[in-house]
Amino acid sequence: MTHDMREVRFLLTGLGNIGRSLLEILSVRQEAMATRYGLALRCVGVADSAGAAYDPAGLDIAAVAALKRAGRSVAHLAQYDPTLSAVELAARAEADLLLEATPTNLRDGQPGLEIVRTALRTGKHAVLASKGPLVLAYGELAALASTSDGPALRFSGAVGGALPTANLGRHLAGAVIERAELVVNGTTQVILEQMAAGHGFETALAEAQRQGIVEPDPSLDVDGWDAANKLVIFANAVLGRPTRLTDLRVEGIRGVPPEALRAAWAAGGRVSLVGLAERQPDGGYTLQVGPVTLGPEHPLARLSRGEMGLVVHSDLAGRTTMASLEDGPVGTCQAMIRDIVDIYGAPAAR
Amino acid sequence: MTHDMREVRFLLTGLGNIGRSLLEILSVRQEAMATRYGLALRCVGVADSAGAAYDPAGLDIAAVAALKRAGRSVAHLAQYDPTLSAVELAARAEADLLLEATPTNLRDGQPGLEIVRTALRTGKHAVLASKGPLVLAYGELAALASTSDGPALRFSGAVGGALPTANLGRHLAGAVIERAELVVNGTTQVILEQMAAGHGFETALAEAQRQGIVEPDPSLDVDGWDAANKLVIFANAVLGRPTRLTDLRVEGIRGVPPEALRAAWAAGGRVSLVGLAERQPDGGYTLQVGPVTLGPEHPLARLSRGEMGLVVHSDLAGRTTMASLEDGPVGTCQAMIRDIVDIYGAPAAR
Repeated sequence: MTHDMREVRFLLTGLGNIGRSLLEILSVRQEAMATRYGLALRCVGVADSAGAAYDPAGLDIAAVAALKRAGRSVAHLAQYDPTLSAVELAARAEADLLLEATPTNLRDGQPGLEIVRTALRTGKHAVLASKGPLVLAYGELAALASTSDGPALRFSGAVGGALPTANLGRHLAGAVIERAELVVNGTTQVILEQMAAGHGFETALAEAQRQGIVEPDPSLDVDGWDAANKLVIFANAVLGRPTRLTDLRVEGIRGVPPEALRAAWAAGGRVSLVGLAERQPDGGYTLQVGPVTLGPEHPLARLSRGEMGLVVHSDLAGRTTMASLEDGPVGTCQAMIRDIVDIYGAPAAR
Repeated sequence: MTHDMREVRFLLTGLGNIGRSLLEILSVRQEAMATRYGLALRCVGVADSAGAAYDPAGLDIAAVAALKRAGRSVAHLAQYDPTLSAVELAARAEADLLLEATPTNLRDGQPGLEIVRTALRTGKHAVLASKGPLVLAYGELAALASTSDGPALRFSGAVGGALPTANLGRHLAGAVIERAELVVNGTTQVILEQMAAGHGFETALAEAQRQGIVEPDPSLDVDGWDAANKLVIFANAVLGRPTRLTDLRVEGIRGVPPEALRAAWAAGGRVSLVGLAERQPDGGYTLQVGPVTLGPEHPLARLSRGEMGLVVHSDLAGRTTMASLEDGPVGTCQAMIRDIVDIYGAPAAR
């Protein structure tokens, strides 16, 4: 299929695992992006915690990725501008698209929130991998992107990597979601499995930490806040309900009785930390996160280690199950590419 | 959220289970379609095997649905025009969108193929629930929809109802599919389960026929042709490979040894009729349909009765699993609504 080629000048803020992986992927797929989607992607700016680099003629993304892989910052790039912050880059760069992958900060959403806000206000499309801006300011950001000729806001990768959590509203267009169950925290899956095998909570947590899958503050995982943040985004974006973290009832996994775990596993099911949304007669939803016993017939009872999944019951589409077992940050990068293609480059027949 | 309201004048060809259900759903969701998506849908023409009715001012879709539910044809509508065929309706009506749900005819694709072709040629978007036109003429139809300002071609509901089979290319944008497994024929699932329980093939087929889930020509189901047709659409639309039915190796379920079935079930797995695409070193795909033993850990080994599912392995997104358990034609109708919203009415933030 032939396409008119479209040049897209993008900025990438945040060069951790996800940002660096994204550059590595894009650097080897430039031809595929052109051939399959008619997109000529040109990176004109990058930013990490050391600052920003900008070059309207385009940066060498493979070189940026190699620099980060070597543990160095953008201050080592020839195009590094010590006077330029990530927010100023988003404001002043001549660019069409922001890719935002700064670390998720759930206290105030910064620096991601100000970067995204600035990009949208200056007419740039925004594709987010970071949850903070969405958890804290979904309504404000969605409003900046709500006009028909305005910039687009996409965040497929912010909730469960490649799992199409944030895209479910489109998938289920026209239907009313009656109940949604999200298993989107892999760390608690591992800890609960360890506990079901007879280990105490502290031992199981230590094992998960040894595997490198626990947030620096373990409370984010084990007390349910990571899952809660994802459910907040889901409630805003898919259920269409303006929702804050304080609207949720959140319970972690510290108090799950060992005998409940053993019984669930023995029956062929398991206990998982589930984000649950249930529609109420008034059209609103109760939202909660907590440990739930999934019987052997539950579609999420057999997720593999590290796999995330969701089940949604809706009036028109019945029971929809989706699961994603992916390799570290690469799945999240794929979700960001999905968003880019969605904004610019989808072919007419699909 | 407020939207500019957009009027969409549509035609619906085919008023069997799917077409009638779609009218029933749309008739009670006019307000929801307006509020949620800014779409004012107006049905200006319908056609069934008796002919067509056209009214630029709009038909009463609840009345059309009631007529069909009573077993009558569009010839009983005041707007019935005995000189108008479905193809002529597609050619001459002042309309923006064709919804095509005539019975799937895999010999020559008619009347659906000529209806869709005509609609696209006259600049109307087309949303298909019927497989025939896609199996027989995917390339031609996709070409008619390939220009950036041309009509759109969508067919979410043609392959597995609400299961997002045809949408997978968008979901996995940027990724290379290495292997895809589709379980998209519910009838063989039921028959194989009966056979695993000790019944002979003929008895199991009779039971499925008693349940009303077998095609009038059982060969479509049990010899794998229904699954093969769906795999042909998947190969064309998602894998991007021009593919015909004759490119597939197709084996049905008549010859599955009872002992293989018993062994698979005893091990906690099952045997399913699977449509399989495997990428080859040259970038092409081998495509086959046949009975496959799914071990207990296979994500498709625990589909519920009537549930369809798929597993796709890709380089970027890892293993993606999707399943849909839906209520008769309603899931297919939801997929058609998804397509309509996708063409016209999606909000900017999603």
